[in-house]
Amino acid sequence: MNIPKSNAPRIIVIGGGFGGVSLIKKLQKLEVQVVLFDRHNYHTFQPLLYQVSTAGLEPDSIAYPLRKIFRKNKDFHFRLAEVERVDTNVKEIYTSIGNLTYDYLVIATGTKTNYFGNQAIETNSMPMKTVPQALNIRSLMLQNIEEADITSDPEKRKRLLNFVVAGAGPTGVELAGALAEFRKGILEHDYPELEEEEMKVHLIEGADRVLPPMSETASKKAAKFLENLGVQLHLKTFITDYDGSIVTTKDGTTFETETFIWAAGVTGAPIGGIDGNSLIEKANRYKVDRTNKIEGLEAVYAIGDIALMETENFPKGHPQVAQPAIQQGSHLGKNFKKILEGKTPKPFVYLDKGSMATVGRNKAVVDFKKMHFAGAFAWFLWMFVHLWFLVGFRNRVITFFNWTYSYINYDRAARLIIRPFTKK
Amino acid sequence: MNIPKSNAPRIIVIGGGFGGVSLIKKLQKLEVQVVLFDRHNYHTFQPLLYQVSTAGLEPDSIAYPLRKIFRKNKDFHFRLAEVERVDTNVKEIYTSIGNLTYDYLVIATGTKTNYFGNQAIETNSMPMKTVPQALNIRSLMLQNIEEADITSDPEKRKRLLNFVVAGAGPTGVELAGALAEFRKGILEHDYPELEEEEMKVHLIEGADRVLPPMSETASKKAAKFLENLGVQLHLKTFITDYDGSIVTTKDGTTFETETFIWAAGVTGAPIGGIDGNSLIEKANRYKVDRTNKIEGLEAVYAIGDIALMETENFPKGHPQVAQPAIQQGSHLGKNFKKILEGKTPKPFVYLDKGSMATVGRNKAVVDFKKMHFAGAFAWFLWMFVHLWFLVGFRNRVITFFNWTYSYINYDRAARLIIRPFTKK
Repeated sequence: MNIPKSNAPRIIVIGGGFGGVSLIKKLQKLEVQVVLFDRHNYHTFQPLLYQVSTAGLEPDSIAYPLRKIFRKNKDFHFRLAEVERVDTNVKEIYTSIGNLTYDYLVIATGTKTNYFGNQAIETNSMPMKTVPQALNIRSLMLQNIEEADITSDPEKRKRLLNFVVAGAGPTGVELAGALAEFRKGILEHDYPELEEEEMKVHLIEGADRVLPPMSETASKKAAKFLENLGVQLHLKTFITDYDGSIVTTKDGTTFETETFIWAAGVTGAPIGGIDGNSLIEKANRYKVDRTNKIEGLEAVYAIGDIALMETENFPKGHPQVAQPAIQQGSHLGKNFKKILEGKTPKPFVYLDKGSMATVGRNKAVVDFKKMHFAGAFAWFLWMFVHLWFLVGFRNRVITFFNWTYSYINYDRAARLIIRPFTKK
Repeated sequence: MNIPKSNAPRIIVIGGGFGGVSLIKKLQKLEVQVVLFDRHNYHTFQPLLYQVSTAGLEPDSIAYPLRKIFRKNKDFHFRLAEVERVDTNVKEIYTSIGNLTYDYLVIATGTKTNYFGNQAIETNSMPMKTVPQALNIRSLMLQNIEEADITSDPEKRKRLLNFVVAGAGPTGVELAGALAEFRKGILEHDYPELEEEEMKVHLIEGADRVLPPMSETASKKAAKFLENLGVQLHLKTFITDYDGSIVTTKDGTTFETETFIWAAGVTGAPIGGIDGNSLIEKANRYKVDRTNKIEGLEAVYAIGDIALMETENFPKGHPQVAQPAIQQGSHLGKNFKKILEGKTPKPFVYLDKGSMATVGRNKAVVDFKKMHFAGAFAWFLWMFVHLWFLVGFRNRVITFFNWTYSYINYDRAARLIIRPFTKK
């Protein structure tokens, strides 16, 4: 592969998510050559993907060109490619655009949607892990409402206006809440021939509460908020099938829907060539030591969602959210000076900054250490934190303006079917 | 088709462009049922499409949901569909979602790209008449620069960094200027392995000057601006072929390029069922009288680009730009009161508000009556006018912010390859 010659050691980073970005930022001052591989030319701010799906934000608010982030890194090279596998014996990776050797390799590939082996769900449901997928959901949602408006078949109309979200983690909760707000703020104004009550939003979860990783208090509050918005909650419900029009569950209940969004789980997205004891197959995560080095390998690291670091507080690994990825990336970046000098790197210590989820306007829940709060203050805090972590001044301003506008007008401006989605 | 019953006469409008939108706004106070058909669920502000292509703006800045525009119209119905033909004898239209009778029909379908019968160009070039097409150009441009960065074949690298725009009307000029600014502001920062000079922008025009519909003064100034930005102008040059990698011209000159944008002409987009003397086949425009009624037909009107109204000042019809469409739509809307009452409608009088085009920052040309000006003031005027005509407060603010940001930072923020474009 065509990479400029350099006397500095080469660090290859796979994945420009939270982990990869915060790592490479810290490498700015080191004498290293950094080559970043990603299949997209932008970093995705995944926590706000659901706002792209529900026509609240356009992609440029939550996506940021990767090349631009690292303009100040000197010997930095971005490659838009898919990494297929690594050969750790010869220290080389194989990609869709050729192969390249490394001195150090950092795997930060994150997760992909987990269908738990269910082929029908994988084929017929709508995942929401990438910007194009989020835009597909937006198109399908709007297309189905348009179609409901013109059909003369009452059964079809019902199916088209039934929205089913699987999984009540933060993504599912936020998506269901946004759909309910779409109904409230837009349906009756834009579609005078449809009644607000005709549109239904169902949220299905296998656990006995929403937001299972958060506190009981947060779960209860979030459930209350969802109900206030008119979201129909179905807890302890296990989905077994979706054929494109009917969702089937274990207890026999069915949901007729043309829009079935799958936010029920993720699994690691490992690359080929590393297995055996290094890969925990159940979770598809690489087992790493306290310095994020993959166990059993030399000079190969994993950070973020793809890494599984067993610690006292998190014996099964850190939660697969942004914070551990950001902190591990940053920590490894700082450690690299020591690693390059052959010194012992410092062990990673996770600083739990709490967790939060939003359901709708003035409705969010926050767990921070032993404190739990919910409502308008939590919602403002949620907005502030998300604006803060968005990359770039411009993205913050555009997002802030869009939120303020939507807040005042109960509106979602980007309800545009740019690329109609065709079901398989 | 499923449209609510109404005692009011039904006006069917085909096309939600400038003409259709300004017409329907004027119908707000009349006792009529309005049914609007469009193949998109949004109105497109076409003059700024080139900014979507060149990563300056996202679609939601220049597209506006049609249903939202007409929230205040009472008996208004939008239908997302393709209109196939009309039978004027039975006053009925046939669409992709069924048929519908009308009392009055207004055709506002605008234009489509004109390939002048050249099949190779139609297959291999990139048109820019719709938002998805503009996004395709954006993706292809960015993909080709990424590919140039990794190829080891110098010929291929040259071809990938050669950008050719056909047609030096306002669209072609603005596009070429924006590409040249992209090179200047972004290439050297984001692609340290590419030299600015390696990227070339060619603008090819059959006439002997750029912006042929504008004044000689404007043409000269615009040509100067383009040259200052490093755009290579090829006037009196007729393109005969493009096979996907080589553009061939009449005099034998060839241009090797992977990115060939076709902005060399438009032709009317008539619907089936109206022909004979009513359709001027050369231009594909409906011949209308001074009240925009299609000649030879009853209760069928055409407005905007698709209409050809012969007047003293414009014996071959008005120019196919926004202003005549807006003014004809608005005029016909006001006339409808008289038409419904069986009175004689007023003839249309075109108010020439001048014309303008922009080449780049501080570089625009304006023709206003006998006055011609160019440079920074013209550029500010261009911005002000375009912001003014954008639909909706939100779109104006977002666009204004993006422009200010780009102006200060020499940046184009939306350089995201969301949907990679695959050549046929």
